[in-house]
Amino acid sequence: MNGNRFGRLFQVTTFGESHGEAMGCTISGCPAGLELTEEDIQKDLDRRKPGQSMITTSRGEPDDVSIKSGVQDGYTTGTPIGLVIQNKDARSGKYEPFITAPRPSHGDFTYSAKFGTRNWGGGGRSSARETVNWVAAGAIAKKLLEREGIELKAHVNQIGDVEAPDVSFEEMLEHSEENDVRCGHPESAEKMQNLIADYQEEGDSIGGSIEFEARGVPVGLGAPRFDSLSARLGQAMMAVPATTAFEFGLGTEAAEWTGKERNDDWAFDDEGNPTPVENDHGGIQGGISSGEPIYGEVTLHAPTSIPKSQQTADWETGELKEEKVIGRHDPVLPPRGVPVVEAMLALTLVDFMLLSGRLNPDRVDGQPGKYDTDYHPSNPRNE
Amino acid sequence: MNGNRFGRLFQVTTFGESHGEAMGCTISGCPAGLELTEEDIQKDLDRRKPGQSMITTSRGEPDDVSIKSGVQDGYTTGTPIGLVIQNKDARSGKYEPFITAPRPSHGDFTYSAKFGTRNWGGGGRSSARETVNWVAAGAIAKKLLEREGIELKAHVNQIGDVEAPDVSFEEMLEHSEENDVRCGHPESAEKMQNLIADYQEEGDSIGGSIEFEARGVPVGLGAPRFDSLSARLGQAMMAVPATTAFEFGLGTEAAEWTGKERNDDWAFDDEGNPTPVENDHGGIQGGISSGEPIYGEVTLHAPTSIPKSQQTADWETGELKEEKVIGRHDPVLPPRGVPVVEAMLALTLVDFMLLSGRLNPDRVDGQPGKYDTDYHPSNPRNE
Amino acid sequence: MNGNRFGRLFQVTTFGESHGEAMGCTISGCPAGLELTEEDIQKDLDRRKPGQSMITTSRGEPDDVSIKSGVQDGYTTGTPIGLVIQNKDARSGKYEPFITAPRPSHGDFTYSAKFGTRNWGGGGRSSARETVNWVAAGAIAKKLLEREGIELKAHVNQIGDVEAPDVSFEEMLEHSEENDVRCGHPESAEKMQNLIADYQEEGDSIGGSIEFEARGVPVGLGAPRFDSLSARLGQAMMAVPATTAFEFGLGTEAAEWTGKERNDDWAFDDEGNPTPVENDHGGIQGGISSGEPIYGEVTLHAPTSIPKSQQTADWETGELKEEKVIGRHDPVLPPRGVPVVEAMLALTLVDFMLLSGRLNPDRVDGQPGKYDTDYHPSNPRNE
Amino acid sequence: MNGNRFGRLFQVTTFGESHGEAMGCTISGCPAGLELTEEDIQKDLDRRKPGQSMITTSRGEPDDVSIKSGVQDGYTTGTPIGLVIQNKDARSGKYEPFITAPRPSHGDFTYSAKFGTRNWGGGGRSSARETVNWVAAGAIAKKLLEREGIELKAHVNQIGDVEAPDVSFEEMLEHSEENDVRCGHPESAEKMQNLIADYQEEGDSIGGSIEFEARGVPVGLGAPRFDSLSARLGQAMMAVPATTAFEFGLGTEAAEWTGKERNDDWAFDDEGNPTPVENDHGGIQGGISSGEPIYGEVTLHAPTSIPKSQQTADWETGELKEEKVIGRHDPVLPPRGVPVVEAMLALTLVDFMLLSGRLNPDRVDGQPGKYDTDYHPSNPRNE
Repeated sequence: MNGNRFGRLFQVTTFGESHGEAMGCTISGCPAGLELTEEDIQKDLDRRKPGQSMITTSRGEPDDVSIKSGVQDGYTTGTPIGLVIQNKDARSGKYEPFITAPRPSHGDFTYSAKFGTRNWGGGGRSSARETVNWVAAGAIAKKLLEREGIELKAHVNQIGDVEAPDVSFEEMLEHSEENDVRCGHPESAEKMQNLIADYQEEGDSIGGSIEFEARGVPVGLGAPRFDSLSARLGQAMMAVPATTAFEFGLGTEAAEWTGKERNDDWAFDDEGNPTPVENDHGGIQGGISSGEPIYGEVTLHAPTSIPKSQQTADWETGELKEEKVIGRHDPVLPPRGVPVVEAMLALTLVDFMLLSGRLNPDRVDGQPGKYDTDYHPSNPRNE
Repeated sequence: MNGNRFGRLFQVTTFGESHGEAMGCTISGCPAGLELTEEDIQKDLDRRKPGQSMITTSRGEPDDVSIKSGVQDGYTTGTPIGLVIQNKDARSGKYEPFITAPRPSHGDFTYSAKFGTRNWGGGGRSSARETVNWVAAGAIAKKLLEREGIELKAHVNQIGDVEAPDVSFEEMLEHSEENDVRCGHPESAEKMQNLIADYQEEGDSIGGSIEFEARGVPVGLGAPRFDSLSARLGQAMMAVPATTAFEFGLGTEAAEWTGKERNDDWAFDDEGNPTPVENDHGGIQGGISSGEPIYGEVTLHAPTSIPKSQQTADWETGELKEEKVIGRHDPVLPPRGVPVVEAMLALTLVDFMLLSGRLNPDRVDGQPGKYDTDYHPSNPRNE
Repeated sequence: MNGNRFGRLFQVTTFGESHGEAMGCTISGCPAGLELTEEDIQKDLDRRKPGQSMITTSRGEPDDVSIKSGVQDGYTTGTPIGLVIQNKDARSGKYEPFITAPRPSHGDFTYSAKFGTRNWGGGGRSSARETVNWVAAGAIAKKLLEREGIELKAHVNQIGDVEAPDVSFEEMLEHSEENDVRCGHPESAEKMQNLIADYQEEGDSIGGSIEFEARGVPVGLGAPRFDSLSARLGQAMMAVPATTAFEFGLGTEAAEWTGKERNDDWAFDDEGNPTPVENDHGGIQGGISSGEPIYGEVTLHAPTSIPKSQQTADWETGELKEEKVIGRHDPVLPPRGVPVVEAMLALTLVDFMLLSGRLNPDRVDGQPGKYDTDYHPSNPRNE
Repeated sequence: MNGNRFGRLFQVTTFGESHGEAMGCTISGCPAGLELTEEDIQKDLDRRKPGQSMITTSRGEPDDVSIKSGVQDGYTTGTPIGLVIQNKDARSGKYEPFITAPRPSHGDFTYSAKFGTRNWGGGGRSSARETVNWVAAGAIAKKLLEREGIELKAHVNQIGDVEAPDVSFEEMLEHSEENDVRCGHPESAEKMQNLIADYQEEGDSIGGSIEFEARGVPVGLGAPRFDSLSARLGQAMMAVPATTAFEFGLGTEAAEWTGKERNDDWAFDDEGNPTPVENDHGGIQGGISSGEPIYGEVTLHAPTSIPKSQQTADWETGELKEEKVIGRHDPVLPPRGVPVVEAMLALTLVDFMLLSGRLNPDRVDGQPGKYDTDYHPSNPRNE
């Protein structure tokens, strides 16, 4: 097993290495009748793609996605969706020095030790480039969620010691895509940008964190205990490259809160239904969504590939040597990590929408494909 | 979930429709260090491909496979292997009449009813063309099994009322690839060929069956109860398009045998180990391999797409009509089914070789990749 | 992995050995609100239990089931259902001679070779006794299917060379539980009974087969390719102890039928919907249910444990010896296999009802639990 | 699916509600030949059980575990291990007021909304009582890991605003079980204990956190990307009741570290193999274990059930009311959470030991069961 699958019913299976011929993924379990074009997917790929700004790697990848199957006349058919993204601008030469001398804190050593070999070009399978597949699959998940009235967004809330103040969901939506850092708070974005530039100049990199939020999630998603909504989000987010922490609701702060402080009393909403008066619980109670917004935070450590000289140990020559990682790398990960976090959030939620029966696994409502058989008694929608 | 995955540890995930842009599959769980080229895979694809003889569809597909990832310098890297096979010769026009008028006993109706739509070109996802993915993945499984001394082969033992006499494994190997029918018994092959030609001429098709055998399977494969070796083979073989029966050992005949007749007494082999004196049990006891050859049979019904006029019901016009299926179709399935059955047998066995610990999941023995770290203590092989 | 789980969404997990302290299984994924009592389960357990007639083992097991969780006030709660069945009448002594000298064609040798040990009492885990868990879980599946208008039944259609003529579903229902053999054709039942008595007398055993049929299965169940309805049934039925063949529709006969003969033309039903004029396809087209009855057959070989003297090889002493299996065993398996086959059919169908969204995974309609919140907007049923 | 399963090859399946008849779990995939007694499991259950000190609920549960299958003569047989733990001291009466009026921030509302009902006694399935199953399964995992030289331990490092200074693994081992708080730093333990007592007195509860560490984990565990070691730990730990954050290595601090600061240079160990000079990476690089100790932290929010009066909304009467949760509850969770975190860590690691081929899935080395067949060629160990 090599961990290239995500999802129980909405299943994503990926392949591809950083400097290989192509990246690709297969999406199984997407209901039929969803309007889907390559543009729908490209939109998000462009937000993740390299070379989009001064603070991202200069590697030039158009990341053009091609749909090979599962879509006909602009609608999904309910069968597996095959996506392929060609790699265009790979320059492996730069990595030569590191073939048998692992980059510090990178996956070079662990992959080589595990498999006795590795695709060394640009980090091969361990490269964050692989997340292009996640974002592609996530774009499809988002389209399904939008139909159900579920909105989600992420933004960068910290870079190094620059922390943005809390912003509303609306501010995230309005501002986070306006600046290269993808921070929903313009002033902080500027500070972050300058900080990144400084580290970049001195050949170093810096860490940061991403906040995410989902609205309109119905009550009842999650399969406690081991597949509770928080457990599945934990897996999804901890899979994001360079992630060292996952929090939801109060996160680490919860350690200092008392039960009385944290508990959200119950009131009635306008329809007379129980509703929490606050949302310190983060939208998840007992591992199941409560109907309140789900929010949390993901911490990403600084990129390990830096131009600064570092010591490595060459297992072929047995020599210690000082090396600089010349390749083209990001000085910071969160800005490009935003669409990746959104994708994992979307993939997790859409999977539970299917698992809870909220989404029909065979076909989407009211969006029949071209050869409709809606009148047909065998059509689940007509029963 | 749309059933495009097979295997627990050696995992195959497929995509593609008969007349779509491309077919493809991702193989996860193939250990690193296996020597692998596109030719290794092409060999088997050529045995399955259309247009190879008079008794196969005239559709012209080169079925050239392209390895997109998971292989470096001729060796697997342990990461997902992405394969893509372009579709070249698709002529969907021919299917127009059947868009809303299902072909008799084909998947047209069930797919349309389930999804409210379907990719109607050449049967779309339900086409046997999809098995090109299985054969590609199976070719990799076979390479792994060969290293472990496991040989397997299948051949056509019946077409219509022409039954071949029992043949030995050696005869299968020697003769089955010599004739277009893929029968291990030359005289029978000729009779079958003539029979097929007759049905083809009158615009009809005919059923048949395939025998398979695996040798050198070690004792101890299988995970009873629900994943017993027989249960997993049952799933694997019943997934083969047009299959209506799966048998192993005595198969349906077992109903008439007594316990005393069927039971295989125990003796000792040359090394003084218990070994059955016969193999009426078919190589599986209590759902686990016994070390004896595993053999069985698969029955495939006649192709449903025939030039003969048949009645269909058009759900758009509400009219009954007589239609002939003009497309290019096989008059019989077993000849091209042989590599498919071999592939499913290989995929099932390699999965259990991994599940039983007989195959190291991370890397193949004695076949290090280019950047070997065999001397390394972290290398499982050195401990 | 040791293969003790079945089902994707309706998940059954079992434990227990023939002569261990208890058998048990956990059912996950049963929707809330199903009325369920121990009697509902006991009904089917009594049909499978030993000592029920002259032609079953004399082992006296009441097989009383105890529900440990997942049910409250007579309704399922949607959480895992834990079932335990105590073993009462175990006499392992009888097996002493076979501890290191395997019974012919039994799982003794393969289990010992795989694990280096085995629970030798009465076959331990490999004993058909383990199917008590399957029948218990199957009884719950049946209750869910009945609510959806799906009926299913199995009966014994062959013992040795005595074959029953085809019987209708109604005859199966009416007659198969009237006689000890569980054959839907009374005259054949009598012949079978006599035949069994003869073999029993001479210390031998005999094989046979079971026919099954399911009615009211909606169009659209099945997840081709690898999880097609036929593939999943193949796994389910081949897991049944002693099964050597699985057939659906025409089964092995299909080899001799032409496409024109086997294809079922389309007509319109009273509501003007396409419907096949016959059912030679067995209720499954393209791996998906067609709405027609699903029928098939399972062949079970003769019980391997017989009082007749057989040769075995003792791996401890290195001696060959003649042994009689004294324990209490069935002279034939199909009569007790009928509820087992029904259970596996029910478990497979209910799983697909959930996978297709036909059954709500969280709660059953119109059957609220005691603490109903149906008025609640967060209740999927009200949206 | 209701999320009661954990593990790919070492599979745990649980059942049981807080005030039901019994709790239980089935462990599949434990190799044969492991010496195992009920005492081995009881040891850890006693560390988790209620009523063990002043700062735990006064509910009196002996939590005696009974092994129902999978063990013979003190050794595992390789078949499923069935465990049952009777519930003895359940007093549901106390919960009456909350049947239709959910406890603030508890699972009462979400379970009722999802299933339309719930087992309301003591929180039913959502109760932390269910973790008794996890600890039982974890005890078996620990025994397997010990054989491989893998040690693991957790301790409480924070309660409210009392943070313990960093302690060594040895200190954790030496001190954490000496005090009721399970803190490896005695002075801090005392402060924590007093703080808890204060909150308990005023009818409130408080949060805290648990640190864990594993030593001797070989290089190469983990299946990136989606099943990276960090992702699987993320799921495992976020499943722990009341968990709001999971961190490994630097955790949230990583946001403020530069690449140069965080990267661990490479040196050579005594055998001349690459080894990191520090362990800021937390034992995981590229999602795969690096051979360095794996350490991290889990934050648990304060127990939601508190004697303090809180507002709830009764959906049956439509009234708001002030209620106190009278039941017997813990004022703080980390002390009893320590064995739970250890269990989830052990279950995750043993699963990867099997997935990486480090542990033989069929049988443990050098620990043959009573009926050994080690001399047998079919024994994997001898080949």
